[in-house]
Amino acid sequence: MNKRGIAILGSTGSIGCNTLRVVDAFGDDFQIVALAAGRNVAQLSTQISRYKPELVSVETEECAEELRAELSRLKVALPPRILTGNAGLIEVATHERASCIVSATVGAVGFVPTLRALEAGKRVALANKETLVIAGELMTRAAEKSGAELLPVDSEHNALHQCLRGERRAEVRRLVLTASGGPFRTNSRQEMERATVAEAMRHPTWNMGAKVTIDSATLMNKGLEVIEARWLFGFEADQIDVLVHPESIVHSMIELVDGSVIAQMGVTDMRHAIQYALTYPERRASQLPSLDLTQMSALHFVAPDTERFPCLALAYRALRAGGTTPAALNAANEIAVAAFLEERIRLTDIPRIIAHVLDGHESRPVTDLDTVLETDAAARVRAAEEINNLIPVIG
Amino acid sequence: MNKRGIAILGSTGSIGCNTLRVVDAFGDDFQIVALAAGRNVAQLSTQISRYKPELVSVETEECAEELRAELSRLKVALPPRILTGNAGLIEVATHERASCIVSATVGAVGFVPTLRALEAGKRVALANKETLVIAGELMTRAAEKSGAELLPVDSEHNALHQCLRGERRAEVRRLVLTASGGPFRTNSRQEMERATVAEAMRHPTWNMGAKVTIDSATLMNKGLEVIEARWLFGFEADQIDVLVHPESIVHSMIELVDGSVIAQMGVTDMRHAIQYALTYPERRASQLPSLDLTQMSALHFVAPDTERFPCLALAYRALRAGGTTPAALNAANEIAVAAFLEERIRLTDIPRIIAHVLDGHESRPVTDLDTVLETDAAARVRAAEEINNLIPVIG
Repeated sequence: MNKRGIAILGSTGSIGCNTLRVVDAFGDDFQIVALAAGRNVAQLSTQISRYKPELVSVETEECAEELRAELSRLKVALPPRILTGNAGLIEVATHERASCIVSATVGAVGFVPTLRALEAGKRVALANKETLVIAGELMTRAAEKSGAELLPVDSEHNALHQCLRGERRAEVRRLVLTASGGPFRTNSRQEMERATVAEAMRHPTWNMGAKVTIDSATLMNKGLEVIEARWLFGFEADQIDVLVHPESIVHSMIELVDGSVIAQMGVTDMRHAIQYALTYPERRASQLPSLDLTQMSALHFVAPDTERFPCLALAYRALRAGGTTPAALNAANEIAVAAFLEERIRLTDIPRIIAHVLDGHESRPVTDLDTVLETDAAARVRAAEEINNLIPVIG
Repeated sequence: MNKRGIAILGSTGSIGCNTLRVVDAFGDDFQIVALAAGRNVAQLSTQISRYKPELVSVETEECAEELRAELSRLKVALPPRILTGNAGLIEVATHERASCIVSATVGAVGFVPTLRALEAGKRVALANKETLVIAGELMTRAAEKSGAELLPVDSEHNALHQCLRGERRAEVRRLVLTASGGPFRTNSRQEMERATVAEAMRHPTWNMGAKVTIDSATLMNKGLEVIEARWLFGFEADQIDVLVHPESIVHSMIELVDGSVIAQMGVTDMRHAIQYALTYPERRASQLPSLDLTQMSALHFVAPDTERFPCLALAYRALRAGGTTPAALNAANEIAVAAFLEERIRLTDIPRIIAHVLDGHESRPVTDLDTVLETDAAARVRAAEEINNLIPVIG
């Protein structure tokens, strides 16, 4: 049997590394043909010597130089072709021998390469949720046109995909995304005003990258997932609910028109969802630990508090406004989160900045890529301006 | 569109009445063509005047006389044909205008009529779990031969059926039946020795008939369900687990080979499962209250304690022994439960009597109906003898 060729966008990040661990476990089925990373040349070198991809891409020409030197030092035989920047990402995403692209870059950078992969008819295992938030309409349209499969890798949408397997779309009443609630689930609004970066980075159940972890602390992560669910599964905002579930055992659920609820549960290990996306429609026996519900003290579910977590309400607002508004939301959020991580603004300034950008945004239909990219750029500028306006307040 | 003809075995019981409420909610889709009841003539008369079945059956000739008088008193126009006993049950189960039989009699009496319905190629919505316990092999063989559908109506198997909808059998690692744990979930062995009938009848989450409620108190209900699951879904004893879940919100779940767990949840109302079995493969919009997980304080899961609940272990023992042993288990349990309800023995004598019967039972292959019926009769005699032996201990 031919091995399925895999390309990873974001191979040195948390999803990328876990994808490689899944490939390790099913070595006979998959082959890594292309890898794209950012600036982590050391780790990419190790991955290259182990998986021997034909093509890699890094962020800058400097990184490429560094990588060449490192591969030479490691005496890697048959080193891969090395590309850089967006063009490199696109080449990785459309590599002819890759039938499945794991799209796991963080933020808006993965958007164009992922779109190109869908246009090329490749299965996309999508961990980059911004992609669908920015331009879900373009993405799903491209997938429909080429017949490409779009499979979610984050645990919530992967859970929804599993719950929906045996069901007819018209018989589904609503989707329910679960949220851990983040590190500030039980904190007061005042306590959140004073939250440090270190506190915000203490995610209770998942070990993830910085951007996603901060998004989890503000519940923007869940808001982005609501928008993502709209495009992945074709449901309207009113049919997508969020439930805070601190134990993160129920990864998400669906409610059918007859009142039945189907939930997917599992241990909190991203490899489950990655494996599912790589092997679908098959399920393969996994050596990962099983879920043992008797080891849980109890499972809890509470409604989210949009007073303390206004980012969730902002995401619904953007989804309902439609068009370019979710792209503006996402861009403003990226800039605001970066400013928080640099300790330039407070955690609670993040929704203020996003609201400011949304207030000034006039939604346009998402007709093409340029519209999206313009919206993204303009929202970033506006968010940066607003951050500069806020800073004296902290000073 | 033709209405789907429904026949109910056990129309005045809890499942029977709930089936009629489901039919009420979907009046345009279903028509009651035949009803079988035991001795509750008053309620059957009311059902007849409302649903106008063509055929009814009651337990005895006396009941039939009483029913004729009652229908005459109620001035029911076009009264149904009235039959009695096993022959009557079989006629109801194979009525030519019935395409779906709801098999909801309690105990072994429903066995032969349900088998005849399957042989006649009818969909059987099965609430009578003893049927599969006694002779699962004969039942499933008959269904395979005629192409009849066998759909479970009790909430646990119905949940498993829903969880399995989108999955391949070979990719399922195990089934997990949930159990409320019954009224003695947290009681000591000593407290259970002294349990009264009234205490045993206080089921925490479901409102059911007396036999099933006592079976829930001993966990024999769950044991019978393990055996039932073996025949409904074709899994071995080692692939069927039980988890005590006091809130009865997760009705059951499956674990896939990749470690993913799919669970079905819902409010504790039998009409959900009945409706599912009647409308399958479609799901119809239900007016029943939805599940609101935010109204639950928490969901708990603990491993069952077979020291305090030996009936569960006895059921696994019978399933592993195979052949006629589950039929002996079921018959001994029916006799023992009846004796407990008559306050002739203690709750904790039930497993003692069953163990005694199993100890003396030599398993034979289930080749035909007579083998099963002989086993059933012999086990009843043996159980009754053992009860008589025990009684002086109490007296």
